[in-house]
Amino acid sequence: MRWLLCFVLLMCVSPALAVERGGDCLSCHQQDSANRQLQSSSHAGKLGCGDCHGVDHDAIDQGDSYVSVDVCGRCHALQLKEHRKSRHGMGLHAGWGCTRNTAGRDKQDCGFCHQQGDSQPISTVQCARFLKQSSEMRQIGCNRCHMVENSCASCHGNHLTAAKIVQDPLVCAKCHMGPDHPQWEAWKTSQHGTLYQSVGASDAPTCQTCHMPQGTHNVSGGLTAPPSGKPYAKEKAEKQRAMMIDLCKNCHAAGFAARDLKNADVVRLQTLGLVEEARKIIRDLDDLGLLDPQPKGRVEHPQRGSELVLDGAMLYEDISHIESLFFRLNKYAAAKTFKGAYHQNPDYTHWYGNAEVKLLLNDIKGEASRLRERGGQVQLPQNAQQEEKVLEVLQNRFKRGELSGDEYAEKKRQVLEQILQ
Amino acid sequence: MRWLLCFVLLMCVSPALAVERGGDCLSCHQQDSANRQLQSSSHAGKLGCGDCHGVDHDAIDQGDSYVSVDVCGRCHALQLKEHRKSRHGMGLHAGWGCTRNTAGRDKQDCGFCHQQGDSQPISTVQCARFLKQSSEMRQIGCNRCHMVENSCASCHGNHLTAAKIVQDPLVCAKCHMGPDHPQWEAWKTSQHGTLYQSVGASDAPTCQTCHMPQGTHNVSGGLTAPPSGKPYAKEKAEKQRAMMIDLCKNCHAAGFAARDLKNADVVRLQTLGLVEEARKIIRDLDDLGLLDPQPKGRVEHPQRGSELVLDGAMLYEDISHIESLFFRLNKYAAAKTFKGAYHQNPDYTHWYGNAEVKLLLNDIKGEASRLRERGGQVQLPQNAQQEEKVLEVLQNRFKRGELSGDEYAEKKRQVLEQILQ
Amino acid sequence: MRWLLCFVLLMCVSPALAVERGGDCLSCHQQDSANRQLQSSSHAGKLGCGDCHGVDHDAIDQGDSYVSVDVCGRCHALQLKEHRKSRHGMGLHAGWGCTRNTAGRDKQDCGFCHQQGDSQPISTVQCARFLKQSSEMRQIGCNRCHMVENSCASCHGNHLTAAKIVQDPLVCAKCHMGPDHPQWEAWKTSQHGTLYQSVGASDAPTCQTCHMPQGTHNVSGGLTAPPSGKPYAKEKAEKQRAMMIDLCKNCHAAGFAARDLKNADVVRLQTLGLVEEARKIIRDLDDLGLLDPQPKGRVEHPQRGSELVLDGAMLYEDISHIESLFFRLNKYAAAKTFKGAYHQNPDYTHWYGNAEVKLLLNDIKGEASRLRERGGQVQLPQNAQQEEKVLEVLQNRFKRGELSGDEYAEKKRQVLEQILQ
Repeated sequence: MRWLLCFVLLMCVSPALAVERGGDCLSCHQQDSANRQLQSSSHAGKLGCGDCHGVDHDAIDQGDSYVSVDVCGRCHALQLKEHRKSRHGMGLHAGWGCTRNTAGRDKQDCGFCHQQGDSQPISTVQCARFLKQSSEMRQIGCNRCHMVENSCASCHGNHLTAAKIVQDPLVCAKCHMGPDHPQWEAWKTSQHGTLYQSVGASDAPTCQTCHMPQGTHNVSGGLTAPPSGKPYAKEKAEKQRAMMIDLCKNCHAAGFAARDLKNADVVRLQTLGLVEEARKIIRDLDDLGLLDPQPKGRVEHPQRGSELVLDGAMLYEDISHIESLFFRLNKYAAAKTFKGAYHQNPDYTHWYGNAEVKLLLNDIKGEASRLRERGGQVQLPQNAQQEEKVLEVLQNRFKRGELSGDEYAEKKRQVLEQILQ
Repeated sequence: MRWLLCFVLLMCVSPALAVERGGDCLSCHQQDSANRQLQSSSHAGKLGCGDCHGVDHDAIDQGDSYVSVDVCGRCHALQLKEHRKSRHGMGLHAGWGCTRNTAGRDKQDCGFCHQQGDSQPISTVQCARFLKQSSEMRQIGCNRCHMVENSCASCHGNHLTAAKIVQDPLVCAKCHMGPDHPQWEAWKTSQHGTLYQSVGASDAPTCQTCHMPQGTHNVSGGLTAPPSGKPYAKEKAEKQRAMMIDLCKNCHAAGFAARDLKNADVVRLQTLGLVEEARKIIRDLDDLGLLDPQPKGRVEHPQRGSELVLDGAMLYEDISHIESLFFRLNKYAAAKTFKGAYHQNPDYTHWYGNAEVKLLLNDIKGEASRLRERGGQVQLPQNAQQEEKVLEVLQNRFKRGELSGDEYAEKKRQVLEQILQ
Repeated sequence: MRWLLCFVLLMCVSPALAVERGGDCLSCHQQDSANRQLQSSSHAGKLGCGDCHGVDHDAIDQGDSYVSVDVCGRCHALQLKEHRKSRHGMGLHAGWGCTRNTAGRDKQDCGFCHQQGDSQPISTVQCARFLKQSSEMRQIGCNRCHMVENSCASCHGNHLTAAKIVQDPLVCAKCHMGPDHPQWEAWKTSQHGTLYQSVGASDAPTCQTCHMPQGTHNVSGGLTAPPSGKPYAKEKAEKQRAMMIDLCKNCHAAGFAARDLKNADVVRLQTLGLVEEARKIIRDLDDLGLLDPQPKGRVEHPQRGSELVLDGAMLYEDISHIESLFFRLNKYAAAKTFKGAYHQNPDYTHWYGNAEVKLLLNDIKGEASRLRERGGQVQLPQNAQQEEKVLEVLQNRFKRGELSGDEYAEKKRQVLEQILQ
């Protein structure tokens, strides 16, 4: 028994033994790039293959042995805790749901959400856009970024662990780029990013400087505007903002930084106003049955059936042309406006963002005009059938909170009077 | 008196005293990034805080003390003179106008255009697009670039002054990028830019090599095509071209360089022809009242009221769909074609530029066809009312110089005869 | 005679004499950048100006002496052979054809396709898009990339020859970028590209690592999907794939690499399915005469006259709006989906690619709906004239292989019966 205890303790602390556990692997995998990278890493001499991959060779070979965040968390407990508190680790509201019942499900995907052999998911939120994709697109297009929830390797790589990899903004760029959230591009061509590239990190902030201060793995500190529509409560938002300004103060006067971020807040709200203007145009067309095609005539939304979806669960496929324009306005151009402003990039804020939002709003208004003309003048009730339509529209507006209970009652009364005349 | 004179002279020449003027500041701001950067700069030991910022602490704190180009010009007189002769410093035809009478005016803006306490503006040109934006968008989206007129810090930064910052093309990239003028992107992926990144500046030109030869701050030397439509007079254009070819000769045969730039000139003219074709389609629709909506039914243009504006003062908001397409064609795609050609970038010239101009021209023609069908056959006059419309159209064309006086008189006579029949 | 033989041999092997042949040149061109670069290159002391450029000064000055791949091939025979076997050298299916009979032909172009004084072209394939452009656009927009067939300098530069130029992915970026094939952008922001930029080539593959293994100049090894629609035969495709996986194995498990590339294959096929869905919508509209304008009412296609062209010879000019949308879907968005997937880039695969394909498909369906409504209900035959139209449509579908011979015969019989009733 004393020997056993001694052995267990040794297993936990002895680098030599840990390496031994990889001993069998190395008889075949000595020359592998993985081993070469491991040996050049800070894990060299401390970890063997089996420490992370386990020792079931068949399982590893079949892709059934996933190196989850829990494996790394055995040693890096603080970092795991911080990661789990951040957007990177907190259920991925824009991530993926269980794909058990969808066609073409790939067993590989399970490891992102479940611990080996555990039916309790780490992530339970479903993403409508994910559910609409093929298994292959999910893997190459969605999971390669959203796996971050359960994969330290997303940023750290599998075996290299070189600090200069994870201190380079490019490690963030892999995912934080593109039409929907070009944070990397906006930073890269901002005063901050260009200075970094010219003179290095000592005089210019990287992604990590502001979003991972003191090396924290909670990347969400200092953010006041979550990606979903619902903002933080005032108190939390103020606390988060104070955290960010505290960082800005390393280089800027606090007042300057506060004004700059406040301007970005206002730009965000102004832009959300334009998004809402566009959304309302499309909702009104839907109320009047004027979309082409109407939601009822399409492939069903995987979560909301034949409802018109213009919020975070909006799809980019199987929608009408005017919704297609709205998707670009909301998901691409508006996002560039905010993210450009918060990253101090005039070109993203103004040209890629603001100008594009407004150009697309023109296009949406033009298409709405066409759709209304196409549908004929259905705005004014002329017979009972149309009045019933108007009642339905009023009800929709009441449900969405656009009409108060009293307003709804009064308007409804007026319409019913017309019918009864 | 002799003492006073002595003191004044000392104030002008003594670095020691100058630093002293910052003495008070440093008792609080010693550890500030600004001071740290200043001390590592070429100004270290020569300038103190107050030399640039003045000594009125309240004014500085309230953002009322702007470090204008004149402050830097006290020592860097030649550079300021060159800057003022260049597009960077000459009134910013695409810049901003006085915002005194617009809502939400920000006092901070004043410093860009006015010297402290002076009502005479440095810049008097108004930009319609600027006037349409919110105060916050103006600051983050417009002024952050256009402040270059009155801010050396736009390029040099506030305190660093490191030569490698301003010799790096990235210092230009911050503003000379994006959908409307991607000079940086075009250079970066051209033969010139890729060579620079592979082997350095000794064998490849940067922005500065061609646009700031011998370190001049007149960045407009060698340019033959101003951003506005109106080209330089032949003599000036030839002189400017000769200046540029003189630079090309450092690496290329003069004949090769001249042919290459001449080709770009022709590409520019050909593209302007396509822009004009698109513009004419929209003007004709406006003449016939077929835009949806017509300018008269919209929010007024801040400078031209309910006129159709398709020139440099064109807005991207509150316009019809077909104008939205034209904005993209003219301001984005055509600009990429020229700038791609002048920067020797095949992808910008052809795919981002030429192909996109022509794709958008298809879209404009398709929309024009729809608008004409929607409006019915109003091309041929069938009664006096329509003939009056035709007279108005003829008058518009005459005003725009599309008809000579004689042509206008003749056509007008024909229409009037028809009415009197 | 013995002296002559001796002289000839010396000409072939003596570096000293070769340099001498440049002696005359250097009396004027000593200080030229070209000479300076040559002297710093690996050709220094081995080649003189005349070795590549010839000694006819007038011809050189007039641009009549083109340094073709054959000139370099005199010494670099293996590389030339490999180059000619690759897509870079094999007739450029997406390249250009003889421009002898097109207006504005530039003599400079001849050198790309013909050896000096030889009427036999190296390249005989015509590119419709090339034929539609002005001479200047061909030179700046098309030939600057497609000249690679007959110009080693496309990648190696004219005089520098530094290995670090051609080992840098930027040398590929110059052409392999942009809306139609952003291989460089996809690589650059992938795990591979970001690692390369963070830690260098030892732990991350460049373009050259996978596409020019062991320095081969056959850049097409390992590719299974040619740019044209027609895929390789199964056996060849499998052999090419095996070549690529062999390279992946330097860093990855073969099974992992095979699965990843297989996923990309599937994504490609799924995307081609969406492309075909869009293509069919437009072909059907053409069959029914509902395009606006129809191909018959337009400037003729330079190769196919008034036929509707939606394949690799499709133009981006003189087409209808719905075709304009299809061009963007097929040539831009679908290409990004494939190339993003094969280069392990989630943002290009999903957002720039897949999402854009599907958004454009919405737009195409919306426009098709409008065109069908505009054309009236012509789907059902109601009189002999319409039945003739149906017969024409059936014939088109049979010609395109959408109907078998039997199906065509049966459907034709049914329609003829209707006419004869």
